[in-house]
Amino acid sequence: MSNLKQEALKFHEFPVAGKIKVVPTKSFATQRDLALAYSPGVAEPCLEIEKNPQDAYRYTAKGNLVAVISNGTAVLGLGDIGALASKPVMEGKGVLFNKFAGIDVFDIEINEKDPEKLVDIITALEPTFGGINLEDIKAPECFYIEQKLRERCKIPVFHDDQHGTAIITAAAALNGLRLVGKKIEEATLVCSGAGAAAIACVNLLVELGLKRENVTMCDSKGVIYQTRSDRDRMDSSKIRYAIADNGQRVLADAVVGKDIFLGLSSANVLSGEMLKTMANKPLVFAMANPNPEITPPEAKAIREDVIIGTGRSDYPNQINNVLCFPFIFRGALDCGAAQINEEMKMAAVHAIADLATEPITDEVRAAYGDVDLKFGAEYLIPTPFDTRLIARVAPAVAKAAADSGVATRPIEDLTLYAEKLLNLNR
Amino acid sequence: MSNLKQEALKFHEFPVAGKIKVVPTKSFATQRDLALAYSPGVAEPCLEIEKNPQDAYRYTAKGNLVAVISNGTAVLGLGDIGALASKPVMEGKGVLFNKFAGIDVFDIEINEKDPEKLVDIITALEPTFGGINLEDIKAPECFYIEQKLRERCKIPVFHDDQHGTAIITAAAALNGLRLVGKKIEEATLVCSGAGAAAIACVNLLVELGLKRENVTMCDSKGVIYQTRSDRDRMDSSKIRYAIADNGQRVLADAVVGKDIFLGLSSANVLSGEMLKTMANKPLVFAMANPNPEITPPEAKAIREDVIIGTGRSDYPNQINNVLCFPFIFRGALDCGAAQINEEMKMAAVHAIADLATEPITDEVRAAYGDVDLKFGAEYLIPTPFDTRLIARVAPAVAKAAADSGVATRPIEDLTLYAEKLLNLNR
Repeated sequence: MSNLKQEALKFHEFPVAGKIKVVPTKSFATQRDLALAYSPGVAEPCLEIEKNPQDAYRYTAKGNLVAVISNGTAVLGLGDIGALASKPVMEGKGVLFNKFAGIDVFDIEINEKDPEKLVDIITALEPTFGGINLEDIKAPECFYIEQKLRERCKIPVFHDDQHGTAIITAAAALNGLRLVGKKIEEATLVCSGAGAAAIACVNLLVELGLKRENVTMCDSKGVIYQTRSDRDRMDSSKIRYAIADNGQRVLADAVVGKDIFLGLSSANVLSGEMLKTMANKPLVFAMANPNPEITPPEAKAIREDVIIGTGRSDYPNQINNVLCFPFIFRGALDCGAAQINEEMKMAAVHAIADLATEPITDEVRAAYGDVDLKFGAEYLIPTPFDTRLIARVAPAVAKAAADSGVATRPIEDLTLYAEKLLNLNR
Repeated sequence: MSNLKQEALKFHEFPVAGKIKVVPTKSFATQRDLALAYSPGVAEPCLEIEKNPQDAYRYTAKGNLVAVISNGTAVLGLGDIGALASKPVMEGKGVLFNKFAGIDVFDIEINEKDPEKLVDIITALEPTFGGINLEDIKAPECFYIEQKLRERCKIPVFHDDQHGTAIITAAAALNGLRLVGKKIEEATLVCSGAGAAAIACVNLLVELGLKRENVTMCDSKGVIYQTRSDRDRMDSSKIRYAIADNGQRVLADAVVGKDIFLGLSSANVLSGEMLKTMANKPLVFAMANPNPEITPPEAKAIREDVIIGTGRSDYPNQINNVLCFPFIFRGALDCGAAQINEEMKMAAVHAIADLATEPITDEVRAAYGDVDLKFGAEYLIPTPFDTRLIARVAPAVAKAAADSGVATRPIEDLTLYAEKLLNLNR
């Protein structure tokens, strides 16, 4: 048994099974406490909520409670391991919400693969939660499931595998382009992989200015073009990026001359030879886990002008969803957002990207062994332990929610709010 | 605004909304901790659970996690106030599980009234939890819902409004009969009310020896007899107790000469005149909330030989479910019981009843203002603050589970287990 395996199992098993527990937030020491918290006093908040449903946010934990929901069909890189076996991941996700943004999470593992039924189940659970984070649900079903839930629920619904990844990638890409002096409106992009996260990344970059005609997507069968023989079996989200047949068939064809390589596929698919053919100062986001499409040392050995990010914590520029999901939900919950819309996602992108251009704090410096990170090719996005993230991202998201009309309880003083959030993390 | 109302609302709103939060049980201070708790380490417990589903009890919080589930159709005495408005009650129930037995609870409020669909939803949630406590779901749907869930789930499913009430009532009735020297096999009973709890109480007493032919049930229309004109519209659980037409039509007819009055109906339905007609040394369980079918002072003023219990904490013999549900689940979870069966319920009845016959501890005495409670007409069952309850009920339940073949992880040393439980509460 490897060291990591042994340690990870031990970590999960001892001293108690699992990673979370539920505790009271009030005193329950006396008979009087019980009479207030339960029968007969509890009838009072029930009646208030019956009269005014918004009062659920005053009298229950709903307003700080997010469901991390999976059916276990696409767990990490492990595939369809089932709802039960996904539980350690969902608990872990809950802990990240808690640690980084003070949000309570019920991890909910649902034994249901049928998208229609899964939507019905999750919709019925809406009264329980203040927000819903979908996790590790396979594509293409995840698109439909999220879309339907957004239509049917009045609380934020967010599929982190899609949008979390997209937001961090977009922040890194914006900063990368800024560094090399290219405009997103003129940049060209090749994407290796056409799963949920890949499509979401490209969608968001298009919203940020990337031209759809400058995108070439490749799936496991190669370049996606309009007259490809399996076109009828492709999901609509994929077909949207099918290019006119230009003779390109494989990734090696499509990568030539491109400014950005987006990898959400598998290990080593971007060879050094292929990297050589990209445009000058190329941006490479090689996010296959655990082994990227190309490693930073390999890429740098091929050409010095490359800027590269991966999904790994042991290389610079880790594209890590934890930079976003705790804070986008923090902002959405605090302003009573009815959804997480495009405006809120874009606000998160800019807040994350902008923070990386500022000098790091002593705290961050210490956490990284006194390395002095400075905005540049090796520091495109903040690190997960940057405690300023919550105070930048959540207020930006809350403001975007208010400006776009989806905040039911807009935050009046955003500066004060940001200060409070900064203290939450200390 | 009344004092209780004001205090209860304030209690629920400040300093944070609601009564629960979710916290990590492990350290998450370092990058290494995160690597074990989340990616990449978390893949290890996932893979173990995929191979062996029982490992979910080793590596996740499942084994100590109960769902308190309601659709809000019969909340307290408030009726169908909806799933959202039931949330304060479900949170409160969770806190009781936590306080009395150290069990984690996710309160789950489900927007679904159709029994078939509700069963499907709850069944799909099974991977999340170690047990399911159904709460405040209206009759007769609750019977069907619980029965179907018990058939379809491999974890304990328990409708506390039915069985919790039944177990405490049965314990009180057994001790009451013991006191007055009557045998349950010969006792006669009249039940006012024919809802979920009433039927469950009578069912359990029948299992304990009460003869079905010695039972008369009354609903809001009076005595339930076989040829009553609305018979076809009655639920099967009710029809089971329909008597042959003996001319009795109303509660006042049926109560004459009975040994036990079971009230789960409404305030003041048992008049002093009616009480007078009961057998000698009658047992009266007047459990309508908040105002009982007859109050203890009223009953005592009519006849001194009456033994009476109510649902209220301000009279002796409070029939309070908290004497049972935390501990029956504690025992069921700890031995990996696949269900809570009749044997386990009966074990709980006897454990609770027997504890009341023992001298109270100094702790209990102190909690009740130095009143020296002694087994008798005013002390038929233990008080909620008797810390011995967990150490008596849970091991008895775990033993019954093992003896009846539903324990998947039988507890070897029940004495040691009882000792550990006693310490849990300190």
